[in-house]
Amino acid sequence: MTTSSALIAVSEQRCFGGKQLRFKHQSAVLHCEMQFSVFLPPQAELHKVPALYWLSGLTCTDENFSSKAGAQRVAAELGLALIMPDTSPRGADVADDPDGAYDFGLGAGFYVNATEAPFAAHYQMYDYILQELPALLQAELPLSAAKAISGHSMGGHGALVIGLRNNAEYRSISAFSPICHPMNCTWGQKALRGYLGDDETKWQQYDAAYLLAKQGSQLPILVDQGLSDNFYPAQLQTDSLVKAAEQAGVAAEIRLQAGYDHSYYFIASFIEQHLRFHARHLGLTSA
Amino acid sequence: MTTSSALIAVSEQRCFGGKQLRFKHQSAVLHCEMQFSVFLPPQAELHKVPALYWLSGLTCTDENFSSKAGAQRVAAELGLALIMPDTSPRGADVADDPDGAYDFGLGAGFYVNATEAPFAAHYQMYDYILQELPALLQAELPLSAAKAISGHSMGGHGALVIGLRNNAEYRSISAFSPICHPMNCTWGQKALRGYLGDDETKWQQYDAAYLLAKQGSQLPILVDQGLSDNFYPAQLQTDSLVKAAEQAGVAAEIRLQAGYDHSYYFIASFIEQHLRFHARHLGLTSA
Repeated sequence: MTTSSALIAVSEQRCFGGKQLRFKHQSAVLHCEMQFSVFLPPQAELHKVPALYWLSGLTCTDENFSSKAGAQRVAAELGLALIMPDTSPRGADVADDPDGAYDFGLGAGFYVNATEAPFAAHYQMYDYILQELPALLQAELPLSAAKAISGHSMGGHGALVIGLRNNAEYRSISAFSPICHPMNCTWGQKALRGYLGDDETKWQQYDAAYLLAKQGSQLPILVDQGLSDNFYPAQLQTDSLVKAAEQAGVAAEIRLQAGYDHSYYFIASFIEQHLRFHARHLGLTSA
Repeated sequence: MTTSSALIAVSEQRCFGGKQLRFKHQSAVLHCEMQFSVFLPPQAELHKVPALYWLSGLTCTDENFSSKAGAQRVAAELGLALIMPDTSPRGADVADDPDGAYDFGLGAGFYVNATEAPFAAHYQMYDYILQELPALLQAELPLSAAKAISGHSMGGHGALVIGLRNNAEYRSISAFSPICHPMNCTWGQKALRGYLGDDETKWQQYDAAYLLAKQGSQLPILVDQGLSDNFYPAQLQTDSLVKAAEQAGVAAEIRLQAGYDHSYYFIASFIEQHLRFHARHLGLTSA
């Protein structure tokens, strides 16, 4: 357990022979105190390990994935760390949705760098996930520089956008039930207008379907979408990602899973396949 | 999904190729409406499957185990149903702890048949778990008569007591962090006095260490206890169960696991071993 002033240990629990950890720290880019969770596999006692960043969905904190996805078993086997950030800046002075809605503001940062007042003061989740958190964790924990990125729903959007725009920073990208084309759905339009303003050309940098069609991807991509998901297709628009991949000539693996919904029961059912996909591209296992 | 008047479907979610289900029903022995969760593995589409009853701990509902233990993966592989009851009677007219404490009353039925007013009117969890629920579920769901029983903390106590007193009804018993000797700890003494009155000889029928020492067991027993558990040893007294097994000449497997605490991260880490233990004794896999 670190005693660095940058990282304050909140809890440590043994799990599958590794450590389920929770930390808090003062974020320089978000200007607030943040909590996040980490799973360190047993191998991290011996050497540095690569990390999978998991971005959660609307209303979640760092604890949903750690308690419900059942990912630690396979991560412990593979020697893969799991990094689970919160979904927005937090604190009494952080602006929220004026109506307290679940889909904007607290718990709904959408992994963008906001430019509109009053949100720009704290909502810089893109930089937090891409820069601040990895730099902090590689300095403080036994993590190598090798990273992969995944997430669910709003977090699937975040994983795709951050991964696509920063191919050199990650080895692979995956997502469950991602918001693929936020410029074209009500969740995304509300968030992008609120954080970025009315100029829709500024929204493009945070739209996975737009980015994939325009620039393609050097990274392998795996996406799972349940066909009994209440938010499919209207909010998620998996089709737009399929079309963008075809347009860009990218061999993304985008799978539609019959019977599955938007819940963590869906994530738990397929997380092992996602972890093994990332492990291959992180060099933990052979292809 | 059943349309029987006895069993009302609340939700159905696909999980590991099987079904994660939630039902409500009017309990005849508890005199209130109850909810419970069931996981049916894919094999239940083809034939009846045996069931593991999981009894949860203090403050839990039917949802803790279903969302946090990660048990469905192995249950789906083995062809084992999981039955997850609530931890007490529920409803506005069900008596609770006078101070609203977490360790007695609602969420803390201790799996006994209460004899003391006002609790006797509803707190008949022993009969509910042993008789009413299995009869209902075998009539309404694709379950064979073969059963095993397990649980955590207060539910570990319940699994041991119900299994030890009804060896013919179950094939195997397991527990995580069970309250082994409730007559001798503050949680147990409060509950047994409150539900059964001051005559401590009436408490014996609900004390696993007492029962095991007195009568032994025809059933195989597996217990896991974490050594970093905040409630160990004072409330749990695993030693008393070890001594009772020795006294009765029973080869119970009682394991102390270094570093693990009282949480679902502990349960998740070892649930696969418990499910495979039960599957062998249920005849699902070879010994």
